[in-house]
Amino acid sequence: MNSTAGLHGLHISQQFNADLEEVRKHMLEMGGKVEKQLAEALDALINADSGKASDVIKEDDVIDSMEMKIDEECNLIIALRQPAASDLRLVLAIIKAIRDLERIADESAKIAKAAIKVSEQGRLPSGIVEFRRLGHFVQRALNQSLDAFVRHDAEAALQVAQEDQNVDSEYATAMRAMITYISNEPDSLSFMLNVLWALRAMERIGDHAKNICEHVVYMVVGTDIRHENLDDIVDRLSG
Amino acid sequence: MNSTAGLHGLHISQQFNADLEEVRKHMLEMGGKVEKQLAEALDALINADSGKASDVIKEDDVIDSMEMKIDEECNLIIALRQPAASDLRLVLAIIKAIRDLERIADESAKIAKAAIKVSEQGRLPSGIVEFRRLGHFVQRALNQSLDAFVRHDAEAALQVAQEDQNVDSEYATAMRAMITYISNEPDSLSFMLNVLWALRAMERIGDHAKNICEHVVYMVVGTDIRHENLDDIVDRLSG
Repeated sequence: MNSTAGLHGLHISQQFNADLEEVRKHMLEMGGKVEKQLAEALDALINADSGKASDVIKEDDVIDSMEMKIDEECNLIIALRQPAASDLRLVLAIIKAIRDLERIADESAKIAKAAIKVSEQGRLPSGIVEFRRLGHFVQRALNQSLDAFVRHDAEAALQVAQEDQNVDSEYATAMRAMITYISNEPDSLSFMLNVLWALRAMERIGDHAKNICEHVVYMVVGTDIRHENLDDIVDRLSG
Repeated sequence: MNSTAGLHGLHISQQFNADLEEVRKHMLEMGGKVEKQLAEALDALINADSGKASDVIKEDDVIDSMEMKIDEECNLIIALRQPAASDLRLVLAIIKAIRDLERIADESAKIAKAAIKVSEQGRLPSGIVEFRRLGHFVQRALNQSLDAFVRHDAEAALQVAQEDQNVDSEYATAMRAMITYISNEPDSLSFMLNVLWALRAMERIGDHAKNICEHVVYMVVGTDIRHENLDDIVDRLSG
């Protein structure tokens, strides 16, 4: 082996690893910021806090810039460093995951907009318990999906993806509670639609967290599992 | 220039162009299929046709497979051919656009599910005119965004993205009509929520068509315009 070429190769590979580490770090910063946006949006809704809701809406621009910057960094890594195999899968998984994070922030901003409408009427007239429970589940799903990403843990990711069923069933329970409320107070319909949209936004956040888990599995094992039955995959990976 | 290297370079570049052409072709096939799914879902909803709605729901798997296959083709192109600059932007724009197409198909399947609920009750009780109008706008937006992609036409793409305002205002009109209907027929609430979700799905399809346009602009001029004011960009590009 030519030692100069070897050193050069090492140099390139070190630079490449530094680039990857940098972009991974930026993605996690973005993830932390998105988690904060979600937590504050839920808080603003449950406490009918318009000040906090306005902050969430304002901060959404910061998330948008973060996503564009990281996306650009990933494009540069692909163009300049030409990663292959698992490195390429990592970069492509980041490109996809930051898009889901950006959407989670968007949905959080929608929850914050509903919170402002709610605050104009005083307080959330129904569903506080349900929102708290559903909020707990989606926040945990987001947190654990980011955690699985950091640890390159496909099994943990699959487990989080499976738990999306809990989000769906909490969502259905909350939706029934809202419909009962509106049926008893038909005049509230126009106002309560805002609350229904917020509920829908939370369900979508659960879906995006599940997407992130699917990107983790793709990144680690190289298989696109989005449209497969999750139980089958768990069997296959553990079998 | 070494003529062997030249021929070799030519050979690689021909193969690369053939790969790109292939993946572009597959994306357009997928686009055509998604357009058909959307048209049939709308038709099923407006005519309360459960048979047609079931077909749309069944065919959604085909779209999912198309997206995974094209995504894999793009990953291979990046890994094996290491495209740079505008070629890389094309491949990344395809990866993003097929994801929007897959989401449009998902939303179309949701419209089809609402169509089945509607068919169980007989017919769409309100909003046929509004659904037709909104349907017309989102179908046109999808068609023109795909067209702008094929022709690498950033100006056309920007124009389609701006017309998303029409979708939003048609959506607001339709939503008001639904709320008036439910207010007069409070017992219809639980059923009418299905219709509201279908309406919401159409608005989201408009958003995804707009996203595709934004990928076209990124692909052609290399700028990520998603979070900018569209009027400013039009001024800049034409100025």
